[in-house]
Amino acid sequence: MPELESEIQEFKQAIARNDLENMREEYGDMLWDALFIGIIAEEKGLFSIRDAIQEAHAKLRRRKPWVFGNEKVKTPEEAVKRWNEIKADEKKAKSRH
Amino acid sequence: MPELESEIQEFKQAIARNDLENMREEYGDMLWDALFIGIIAEEKGLFSIRDAIQEAHAKLRRRKPWVFGNEKVKTPEEAVKRWNEIKADEKKAKSRH
Repeated sequence: MPELESEIQEFKQAIARNDLENMREEYGDMLWDALFIGIIAEEKGLFSIRDAIQEAHAKLRRRKPWVFGNEKVKTPEEAVKRWNEIKADEKKAKSRH
Repeated sequence: MPELESEIQEFKQAIARNDLENMREEYGDMLWDALFIGIIAEEKGLFSIRDAIQEAHAKLRRRKPWVFGNEKVKTPEEAVKRWNEIKADEKKAKSRH
């Protein structure tokens, strides 16, 4: 985890310097570190990377019905409002279990 | 970027609480945020995610010849030493360009 956090700092520094080559390098390092954390978690039997990705994907689809569903929103503010409403509903439903 | 950093904090908190379900959720959020950063970078024409991943992969292969090549190391310390030697050689070669 400290490795991932330090790669993020290096990536931010590359952005600040506007160093395209280094940005690409640090972004790649960052992704690999994030993946390694998942592999370690899998080896420890904590969760599977596939499940984590699918769950996050499903959450995204649920919370952005104006992108993935039939809902319409007119402004970014309205979109944020809908996101928060759906999130609150999900939390409520979860706490009933 | 702040979103990614806050997801990492939430993931660490889930680990601290030993909350498996939340660990999986926050890890997934973390990966998606990391991916979105790459997509934004691609849209801005800064670099491609594919190039970044391939570059990091090639670097890993170069720097761990005891895993991917024919070299032998006897201890973790020796492995770290080789990694640092190769890294230093690469930096030297780069600065000659």
